[in-house]
Amino acid sequence: MKRREFLKKAAVTTAAAGAALSFGAPAVHAKKRYLWKMVTTWPPHFPVMGEAADMLAKWVETMSDGRLKIQVYGGGELVPPLQTFDAVSGGMVEMGHGAAYYWAGKSPATQFFAAVPFGMNAQQMNAWIYAGDGQKLWEEVYAPFNLKPMPAGNTGVQMGGWFNKEINSISDFKGLKMRIPGLGGKVLAKAGGTAVLSAGGEIYTNLERGVIDATEWVGPYHDYLMGFYKVAKYYYYPGWHEPGTVLEMFVNKKAFESLPKDLQEIIITAAYRSNLWMLSTFEAKNNFYLNKLINEHGVKLKQFPQPVLKQLKKYSEEVLAEIVEKDPLSKKVYENFLAFKKNVVAWANISEIAYAKTLNL
Amino acid sequence: MKRREFLKKAAVTTAAAGAALSFGAPAVHAKKRYLWKMVTTWPPHFPVMGEAADMLAKWVETMSDGRLKIQVYGGGELVPPLQTFDAVSGGMVEMGHGAAYYWAGKSPATQFFAAVPFGMNAQQMNAWIYAGDGQKLWEEVYAPFNLKPMPAGNTGVQMGGWFNKEINSISDFKGLKMRIPGLGGKVLAKAGGTAVLSAGGEIYTNLERGVIDATEWVGPYHDYLMGFYKVAKYYYYPGWHEPGTVLEMFVNKKAFESLPKDLQEIIITAAYRSNLWMLSTFEAKNNFYLNKLINEHGVKLKQFPQPVLKQLKKYSEEVLAEIVEKDPLSKKVYENFLAFKKNVVAWANISEIAYAKTLNL
Repeated sequence: MKRREFLKKAAVTTAAAGAALSFGAPAVHAKKRYLWKMVTTWPPHFPVMGEAADMLAKWVETMSDGRLKIQVYGGGELVPPLQTFDAVSGGMVEMGHGAAYYWAGKSPATQFFAAVPFGMNAQQMNAWIYAGDGQKLWEEVYAPFNLKPMPAGNTGVQMGGWFNKEINSISDFKGLKMRIPGLGGKVLAKAGGTAVLSAGGEIYTNLERGVIDATEWVGPYHDYLMGFYKVAKYYYYPGWHEPGTVLEMFVNKKAFESLPKDLQEIIITAAYRSNLWMLSTFEAKNNFYLNKLINEHGVKLKQFPQPVLKQLKKYSEEVLAEIVEKDPLSKKVYENFLAFKKNVVAWANISEIAYAKTLNL
Repeated sequence: MKRREFLKKAAVTTAAAGAALSFGAPAVHAKKRYLWKMVTTWPPHFPVMGEAADMLAKWVETMSDGRLKIQVYGGGELVPPLQTFDAVSGGMVEMGHGAAYYWAGKSPATQFFAAVPFGMNAQQMNAWIYAGDGQKLWEEVYAPFNLKPMPAGNTGVQMGGWFNKEINSISDFKGLKMRIPGLGGKVLAKAGGTAVLSAGGEIYTNLERGVIDATEWVGPYHDYLMGFYKVAKYYYYPGWHEPGTVLEMFVNKKAFESLPKDLQEIIITAAYRSNLWMLSTFEAKNNFYLNKLINEHGVKLKQFPQPVLKQLKKYSEEVLAEIVEKDPLSKKVYENFLAFKKNVVAWANISEIAYAKTLNL
């Protein structure tokens, strides 16, 4: 039998066998199966963020009919949370799930793809990443680490945090010990406060014992779960330091490129779904738990005074200028970010912002 | 050879043949292939909306490795735009793409899944549909028509429209002939205006010749393409009548249920991606074209005065009350919509809305 005829015949046999097997017996796949690992920066099955990682894996498995199975590991289950980046970069595992500002030590430019104080909100970040230059720039920042990043969630506007003293003027930040990581912490320092590092599990006790005077966390849902309302007097808004934090999924580039086109597209599309699912879930949960905090636990909501926010914004610009000055890649990213923001805010002023005013008419 | 042994052997043979074939020869698929049709309410390849339908089909085809190929038809190519619903409902084609308010004649409750005057914005609509009761209710409304609906896009906040007279008080709507369909048109009528029906292709000429005094369309990008700036004096905001219009994709229920699980999940996930892609694209395009309209074409932006918006909001509530009074399903949907809106606006007031104020500090 000639090779070509053999192949033809084999194809027919295979198809027939597949058809026969589809009743009762497991389906036959001529295609390669993949068993991947995803490490995350979240505790296992952490509400919303961790759940999103779990669901993303499930969607990929279902869409690929089991050809790409992703085992999700919570932070510390396989590697410590903050080694997620290195584990995927080095090829120990194929995928990671976290937030880009955790990797500021690798490259300061990563921070622009998570949250920028007084930066863009969720809708604007998505527009920049998906329909502006954001995705291209993000890939450029992660390329030296052999990673392909993509958005996989968003918290929406976060809360300003829990405080045991009132903030009436910018001078009230002087000497304030607050748990606030990243860029927000640098801004606090400019205002004379001290950014204190506290692991998630220690914040409550630190706040209770006065080791810290204030802490930020996420929003009403997560903050409720942490029980901060029991040990803090005031719940401040808005979360100027994280106005629409992007959560990310990244894939080892070589692993990604080794996949067939259909599985690549499945991963990309699942990440979009995860992004929208997460923001929608946050929106739905946060208003429910905000109600609970106010009505069942008597939480006192307070808005940062506008002059305080104005001053914090000025400090934020200083912090960002210092980063950009030292790192050309940060400069390139931030300039693009700022140009997009300027236009999108002009548009928001006559769309979202103008419309929002009618909601309370 | 016993049956069980045969099946086992066949499986091995098949797998081996598949492996051999994966080099050079076309891959072998034991699985069924589907060739589907999607009809849409848009002109072929219409910017953003039509492009999203095209892309959705492409993503599904790529993710399914060609097992589900969807041929997209612009409005009029296979059936007239407004027969999209019937064509999918009756099983003539498998999928449709449009906006739920086009089907108010089938069931008034459909309108709540597209745009409600003074209703929720894109982010809030997504939260209601994906993480509230929205999806479940939408499926209930479409079930009698044998359709499974899902969000597949969003325009964001639209513009208020192009006017040839200034709107300084609510009485300026008296006698105003405006092209504004759906619920917005009913609100206009309450204000003493006349909602005029104009097909897309006739609006420009009608505005130029004074057949109409005003028209709404979409937002800066689409409005620029239509050239309205050449024949109208004022460009009003915000689009109180369409604050976050959901575009939809629906599938004939029987056709959907006949698909294997992987292809079902692929369709659902592609629709999420399409939703996020569309809103992001609108955000990015609108600010670019808003700039163009203002700086290159001298367009005069005008904001509806707050007292006018307040009165329009009152009329909107009347229009909605009348719909709900006559139709129990509309009542059920609207009550759920309103309860969700109340909470989500309380949350928006201390998150998105409070944060937005800092953008212009």
